[in-house]
Amino acid sequence: MPHPFDPGYHDEPFRTLVQDYPAEEVYPPSQFRVEWGPIFHRGRLDGSARVLVIGQDPAQHETIVRRILVGEAGRRLQGFLAKLGITRSYVLINSYLYSVYGSVKSQVAKDPRLVGYRNRWLDALLVGKRVEAVLTLGTAATDAWNAWKATPTGQGVNVPFAAVTHPTQPESSSKGDRTKLALATTTMLKNWNVGLETLVPAIQHPDEPRALVPYGEVWAEGDRLTMREEDFPAGLPPWMQDDGWAKRAGADDLAKRRNITINVPKGILS
Amino acid sequence: MPHPFDPGYHDEPFRTLVQDYPAEEVYPPSQFRVEWGPIFHRGRLDGSARVLVIGQDPAQHETIVRRILVGEAGRRLQGFLAKLGITRSYVLINSYLYSVYGSVKSQVAKDPRLVGYRNRWLDALLVGKRVEAVLTLGTAATDAWNAWKATPTGQGVNVPFAAVTHPTQPESSSKGDRTKLALATTTMLKNWNVGLETLVPAIQHPDEPRALVPYGEVWAEGDRLTMREEDFPAGLPPWMQDDGWAKRAGADDLAKRRNITINVPKGILS
Repeated sequence: MPHPFDPGYHDEPFRTLVQDYPAEEVYPPSQFRVEWGPIFHRGRLDGSARVLVIGQDPAQHETIVRRILVGEAGRRLQGFLAKLGITRSYVLINSYLYSVYGSVKSQVAKDPRLVGYRNRWLDALLVGKRVEAVLTLGTAATDAWNAWKATPTGQGVNVPFAAVTHPTQPESSSKGDRTKLALATTTMLKNWNVGLETLVPAIQHPDEPRALVPYGEVWAEGDRLTMREEDFPAGLPPWMQDDGWAKRAGADDLAKRRNITINVPKGILS
Repeated sequence: MPHPFDPGYHDEPFRTLVQDYPAEEVYPPSQFRVEWGPIFHRGRLDGSARVLVIGQDPAQHETIVRRILVGEAGRRLQGFLAKLGITRSYVLINSYLYSVYGSVKSQVAKDPRLVGYRNRWLDALLVGKRVEAVLTLGTAATDAWNAWKATPTGQGVNVPFAAVTHPTQPESSSKGDRTKLALATTTMLKNWNVGLETLVPAIQHPDEPRALVPYGEVWAEGDRLTMREEDFPAGLPPWMQDDGWAKRAGADDLAKRRNITINVPKGILS
């Protein structure tokens, strides 16, 4: 059985972008986990993308897979894109190349070197390409989009755009409170329905045309979908397309920061 | 500062080889850690390789980096190649795509599907290419080479070949006994000197021509060298070019088998 994979950064301009990225001098280690290296994208770099998504920052599963939005947030996004008929023709980048540690100071977020590098990715993915809609997940991503739109190239590209709540905002805002989580989820799904309505008319070339089925008040069957095997680097085992297999473990904050612990899910090995 | 990286398996025939590899049906999970996925190679796939190396099987660092011979064995090999003047123009594959668990039964090692797939890699790397010498590390690798040489394509390719002791055989054979380790190291380095003498005349196009400096009775300065950054996938942090940062931890054999624990080396984060 063939296993399609992401051929990665062989072609320009991505080859150059991936060779020369901002590091500690731009992303302070007090605010970013630069020690794990940058993580760049997920999805199509071959010009076939119809939707461009901007996320925020990678976490531990992304650090091992070396592709972004591969965990729960990614699965929810995959469901959103499928409602638009986009099952393959997407490309995703993040606002930040590194995992946020604590919070990001606004001066850092606005650093022209950070913004300028990200804008080079947006140039590469949008100028003269076939992207029909842009989606941003959360405020950092929306800021990233606006920063690019303010550039001369950004001003020259006219593409429909929707900003939606970050896919795991309900979890991060409710901090374990189940009532708050349910409420935040319903609020987010309403917000996502607005995003869908904005983008549906923009998608002229869906991979799989379908009538829009909006979200209900809670997650429904099919709202969260697995990633495509071809989004992952060559040879990764299928269980890495799920999440929950990597955690940060340690006796204190520094030990946790230094650590990623991977366990093959139960059931794979008996 | 630019960070060159391995662009991977974009081009044929590697793209097809990496999409369709033998799995559990060929590599029994009782003898191989198939649950971590196949790991294919390290080094140049662009036809520039002058030396082809066959190793045995990947371990835990290789599993995270998704390239072979990146640990201590790789560093020793890197030193061997440098003595031949080969600092860049090498390509490495393994006898087995998966980490050996316990030992490999001879019937499995000879499975025509296992051998046939590996032979397709050897065809791709050797037929009509510029490889001037082949090196095998350990008996499984020598068997792999002989199996390919017995094929019609193998018979048609005439390339000097040396079989040497596997780079970490001294450690695996001495099981913590320091006297045995010293003796096994000396024995291996003598064996490696014979390998060097065999291959030196074959290398017509070294990357950095140099007079042969044979090994002494113990490891000397420069005998173990770091890998090249361009041997690694894009974005990996520099400390992953070293080893000792990944281990298999767990309360019992199954827990250990399911686990890889990564810690950023001390000194990277204070």
